[in-house]
Amino acid sequence: MLVLVGCMLGWAEAGLAQGGSMLGFFPGHVSSQLSLEKQFSDELQTADMDQWMKRLSALPHPLGSPYDKQNILFLDSLFRTWGYQTHIDTYYVLFPTPRLRRLEMVSPTRYQAVLMEKVIPSDPYTAQTALQLPPYNAYSADGNVTAEVVFVNYGIPDDYTQLEKMGISVKGKIVLAKYGRSWRGIKPKLAYEHGAIGCLIYSDPRDDGYTAGDTYPQGPYKNPYAVQRGSVMDMPVYPGDPLTPGRGATREAQRLTRGEAKTLIPIPVLPISYHDAQPLLAALKGPVAPPSWRGALPLTYHLGPGPTRVHLQLAFDWKLTPAYDLTATLPGSPYPDQWVLRGNHADAWVNGAADPVSGLVAEMSEAKSLAGLYRKGWRPKRTIVYCVWDGEEPALLGSTEWVEDHAAVLKQKAVAYINSDMNGRGYLYAGGSHTLEKFFSQVAAEVKDPEKGISVSRRQREADALQGHRPMEDFRLDALGSGSDYSPFLQHLGIASLNLSFGGEDGGGEYHTMYDDYLFFTQFKDPGFAYEKALAEVAGRSVMRLADADILPFDFTHLSRTVRRYTDEVRQLADDTRRLARLENHWIADSVYHHTSDPKEVFVAPAAPKPVPYFDFSTLDNALSALSRSASDYHHAIQALEVAPDTNLVRRINGAVYQSERQLLTEKGLPGRPWYRHLIYAPGLYTGYGVKTLPGIREAIEQGDYQNVNLQISQVSQALTNLSQFIDGLCPSKTQAGF
Amino acid sequence: MLVLVGCMLGWAEAGLAQGGSMLGFFPGHVSSQLSLEKQFSDELQTADMDQWMKRLSALPHPLGSPYDKQNILFLDSLFRTWGYQTHIDTYYVLFPTPRLRRLEMVSPTRYQAVLMEKVIPSDPYTAQTALQLPPYNAYSADGNVTAEVVFVNYGIPDDYTQLEKMGISVKGKIVLAKYGRSWRGIKPKLAYEHGAIGCLIYSDPRDDGYTAGDTYPQGPYKNPYAVQRGSVMDMPVYPGDPLTPGRGATREAQRLTRGEAKTLIPIPVLPISYHDAQPLLAALKGPVAPPSWRGALPLTYHLGPGPTRVHLQLAFDWKLTPAYDLTATLPGSPYPDQWVLRGNHADAWVNGAADPVSGLVAEMSEAKSLAGLYRKGWRPKRTIVYCVWDGEEPALLGSTEWVEDHAAVLKQKAVAYINSDMNGRGYLYAGGSHTLEKFFSQVAAEVKDPEKGISVSRRQREADALQGHRPMEDFRLDALGSGSDYSPFLQHLGIASLNLSFGGEDGGGEYHTMYDDYLFFTQFKDPGFAYEKALAEVAGRSVMRLADADILPFDFTHLSRTVRRYTDEVRQLADDTRRLARLENHWIADSVYHHTSDPKEVFVAPAAPKPVPYFDFSTLDNALSALSRSASDYHHAIQALEVAPDTNLVRRINGAVYQSERQLLTEKGLPGRPWYRHLIYAPGLYTGYGVKTLPGIREAIEQGDYQNVNLQISQVSQALTNLSQFIDGLCPSKTQAGF
Repeated sequence: MLVLVGCMLGWAEAGLAQGGSMLGFFPGHVSSQLSLEKQFSDELQTADMDQWMKRLSALPHPLGSPYDKQNILFLDSLFRTWGYQTHIDTYYVLFPTPRLRRLEMVSPTRYQAVLMEKVIPSDPYTAQTALQLPPYNAYSADGNVTAEVVFVNYGIPDDYTQLEKMGISVKGKIVLAKYGRSWRGIKPKLAYEHGAIGCLIYSDPRDDGYTAGDTYPQGPYKNPYAVQRGSVMDMPVYPGDPLTPGRGATREAQRLTRGEAKTLIPIPVLPISYHDAQPLLAALKGPVAPPSWRGALPLTYHLGPGPTRVHLQLAFDWKLTPAYDLTATLPGSPYPDQWVLRGNHADAWVNGAADPVSGLVAEMSEAKSLAGLYRKGWRPKRTIVYCVWDGEEPALLGSTEWVEDHAAVLKQKAVAYINSDMNGRGYLYAGGSHTLEKFFSQVAAEVKDPEKGISVSRRQREADALQGHRPMEDFRLDALGSGSDYSPFLQHLGIASLNLSFGGEDGGGEYHTMYDDYLFFTQFKDPGFAYEKALAEVAGRSVMRLADADILPFDFTHLSRTVRRYTDEVRQLADDTRRLARLENHWIADSVYHHTSDPKEVFVAPAAPKPVPYFDFSTLDNALSALSRSASDYHHAIQALEVAPDTNLVRRINGAVYQSERQLLTEKGLPGRPWYRHLIYAPGLYTGYGVKTLPGIREAIEQGDYQNVNLQISQVSQALTNLSQFIDGLCPSKTQAGF
Repeated sequence: MLVLVGCMLGWAEAGLAQGGSMLGFFPGHVSSQLSLEKQFSDELQTADMDQWMKRLSALPHPLGSPYDKQNILFLDSLFRTWGYQTHIDTYYVLFPTPRLRRLEMVSPTRYQAVLMEKVIPSDPYTAQTALQLPPYNAYSADGNVTAEVVFVNYGIPDDYTQLEKMGISVKGKIVLAKYGRSWRGIKPKLAYEHGAIGCLIYSDPRDDGYTAGDTYPQGPYKNPYAVQRGSVMDMPVYPGDPLTPGRGATREAQRLTRGEAKTLIPIPVLPISYHDAQPLLAALKGPVAPPSWRGALPLTYHLGPGPTRVHLQLAFDWKLTPAYDLTATLPGSPYPDQWVLRGNHADAWVNGAADPVSGLVAEMSEAKSLAGLYRKGWRPKRTIVYCVWDGEEPALLGSTEWVEDHAAVLKQKAVAYINSDMNGRGYLYAGGSHTLEKFFSQVAAEVKDPEKGISVSRRQREADALQGHRPMEDFRLDALGSGSDYSPFLQHLGIASLNLSFGGEDGGGEYHTMYDDYLFFTQFKDPGFAYEKALAEVAGRSVMRLADADILPFDFTHLSRTVRRYTDEVRQLADDTRRLARLENHWIADSVYHHTSDPKEVFVAPAAPKPVPYFDFSTLDNALSALSRSASDYHHAIQALEVAPDTNLVRRINGAVYQSERQLLTEKGLPGRPWYRHLIYAPGLYTGYGVKTLPGIREAIEQGDYQNVNLQISQVSQALTNLSQFIDGLCPSKTQAGF
């Protein structure tokens, strides 16, 4: 139902330039900060970004390739030219690359899969085939299997539930799954858990091929031969080098054997084009796939098993590869040991103009502009650390190993981490820690959308309103799951993080294909680099404000509100699950499934679900009440402090407040995956990149682990209580209202 | 959200056989009635139905064809053999058939459309091409036009709103619309209203071609050459012969000229296959169609206009054709002038095994079985009239002309009309007058589903429950729009009606194609004729119970409850429309559409909507209160009467109660379409077959005709008040509670 939204409240811009207050700045410092930020923005050059993208994406540059290393060295020289102190850390990470890829249908007819993307004559980058990694899924197992095929839709948990209802097992079969609806690594993981011996993943033209739009080179969507490469490592367990979980993969680091690593997929997995998938699908028989499973190939989607039978043979070179992480530092004063980190990765699957170079050139542009301000005398209060990560594509390798290697110093010094990755034309997408939401919404209100002239915040909020969402006076940060280099900072160490990009007007199917190149980007993604400049503005101003703030701009009212919303969600999830379980038990008892099914189709009624007990949310409710009060008290204390600064107190708060996010960690980690320690945000065990908020509670309910729910609730409650006490300890002068 | 449904209440079957009460029967008559009904059911023979279907669908038999007439004469002889008094009424109706059909793409490349369905070697019926009407849309205009093509999705009102937002006009163009989402006649009507000069309609493979399932002859869905024929007359204005609205098209009837007829579409319209649509769509450029518009052809769906340019030339033979309506009567006593009517049409677009023969053979089987009971001494209290309609396919011609011709006697004598048409394997779909809902739910609880052994009522209610709908103790009748021969009975004369079919396990794309033949039906639709027998059971028992009832089983509590629900819906519609109009006005004032649109795409912000006033629903609420009370009083009066019968009162009620539905008519008809007089049910002016309940009120709101809403509300209120008074007058002994 429609809600009469807050456009009636007016789309008030933050209006700082008109004398509003700026979170973390004494009133007298606001206009000089805004003036500095304006200078920063004015110095951002789209010509730089264009030129850098052309150079950085000139050749394929995956982890371990010569051009990847050349790029790191080129970027290092840029930073040094601008006056940064740079450092390159090298880690030795397990990175399999293909030696043999073979897929053939052996019955009912024979078909030899092409497994190569098509060179486009008008796009010479696509002809650099000798330098490319061909389409493959990193961390697939070696394998040589022949079996019947089963079509499993997107290969996510609901799809296996549906297959069971239809009496179809994937045991001993090779599954054929569509890309989409989950991170790709979930597909072979679930296939393996259900007994499959191989996994093929293809991109259906309905999702990002001809149905989505014109195909490359006429348009940006997948032509019949395009294939999405990508990692299938079980990153929801831990990211980074599979052999060194929790510690930096230095040369001398102690390593697991491959057999001991929990994140390697035990079955062979291969991504294929829709050209290669079509004959396999066309030959399948068995039941017709459920309506929502069907793609846009001109055939009837059957599930199998068989008669399509394929032979899949894969062999990889399982070598340790050096990954080069570049850091570039601009020292701050008076808080040199408070670090504001900003990063983007440099490695690409192929040429990677969009992924990652579009974000990387924004980052470089920020660094150059800040260096210019520095030369003109600007001195940030805190140290700024620009980071360029290697090996993000296979498994967030560079960032994870660096974070693990520097964990001790980061825990002590890291104020926040700001990430970017792919970028394009459109709306601001921002996710991150809700302790930074209020701060970030002020930044986003200050940056103008290059197409429309209103703020990027307002454009995003208006788009949300049009989609029928609730209106927001404040910009709302999405919760972060995984999928880029913020994950080790946020979820392993509890460093408040932001992940920023623009998009939504840059649709296409080039992601992780060889078509993601400079010609493609400048034709379809963001021809004038206006949104790379906008990204640099948003990220760079965020860096500056964090680095320059009189009092670090953390806020807990938004966090408290947001966690309350997540609590309402999991409570509702429990209620819905309970109600559904009751209902299904009645249906089963009354033979309703049997009565309503079509006797000409196989239908296996679901097993009776376990009853769902009632859970004790009271500790969480109480902890949220306390947090809400602490957040409000802190807010008022900071307001008072801005009017009447107390230098010692300010210094004390600055030295401690950024540790607030660490209070939300659990030392022993989430159930079954100790690397992930954040109790509020994690990637879903069975969604992959997709976030699960309050993951311990939510996944215990979702997975039917009901006896564990109260324990998970109490852990979150304890962390929130710790955070309240931590906040209360920041400003001892504030009202200590009893609970 | 899930609702914990009434399976917890138990799926109580009506349990009449176990001594429950049967609406309309004195307690002492229930078991003999059930015994009679069981005899009736036992005599239904699937072998008869199989044999009749084979014979009736042996050759194409559209209106005006020799085989259509032969079928009517054959059926007439059957009825007479069984002892019915039969009569054939002949009407002379305008029925255009094609002389010339030509479609070619003239640019950017040339393509000559095939316009013929493909003969299937394994199905000799499909080779009867010399006897077939080729694919065409009856009541298309003659025309010879050449223009650019615009793809308009399903060609319904929302689609034109979307095209306007994208800056695309169909003025002077030929639209290409998909079949589906509306009755087909809406597509050329709207195209014409928006200025198009021609209309093509095709079946996208996503809807009922290869995406839906295997295609004929491998499976039941549309192969590339299959085309849905069908009428495009503007039946929401009036059905039946376009030249004789409101009166029977007898030989001597006064006729309009074609130019005066309001139901003829002024532009040429042609249905085509997806084989013929594909080259036209592939050549279109212009914006990519919105995601939900895209079908499953292997191409990118663009909107145009052009560069696809087609030449469409159509010419028809606009002749008057005789339509033969057969009626067969079994006289009743003591109420010979109370008629229970039961009908199905006989004409088909081609061989028509499913449409209409599957319903027709059920009807014949009922008639045969009842005749058997009659020979054994059963005497219905009321006269039973079996009807076989001609010319349903072009425009409900036979039934409408017969009803118009016999309006006076029908108004006086018709108790109810029970219709069927296509039928297949699956669930019971039943629509009709809610005065009959309670009665019908008892009938449906008595008939066993042939696949599962539970009642057809329970199976349908359980399927509803599984789909997340609310549970119902009583079977719920859908409201009737149009699309089959009940329309003139219900909506023109106010005769309480039912429309019955089974389906949902008989999916396919054969509707109105030459593949709807005996081989197809016995392979895919209902191989054992079990559901034709079930239809005969449901319809036949309904006929028997109406004919045999001690007191006619009309009930007003369900009607009152249902109209209250419709009232809540239109009130909600008014509120939502008002809220949306306010919201859109704010969005327009704040430039939200401009801010959020993609500058690389044409976007025309919508015009500011008119504000929606508040309407006076109080008269309707008061009328509903009164109706609810009258319904309850009547219910109690009947209960009392069943215990202590009063012969005179029973006779008086029987002589009047079936006139109740007439109280819901308005003499002047609905706005702009006086033929439609029912104030509760009508086909939508812009949905076609799709029903609009409380059509005057609902369509005034939907079409922004706000100054007319209160008038429409007061008309409905007046009719409901008349009905209350009518009901109160039936049982003068009941409590006359003041209002």
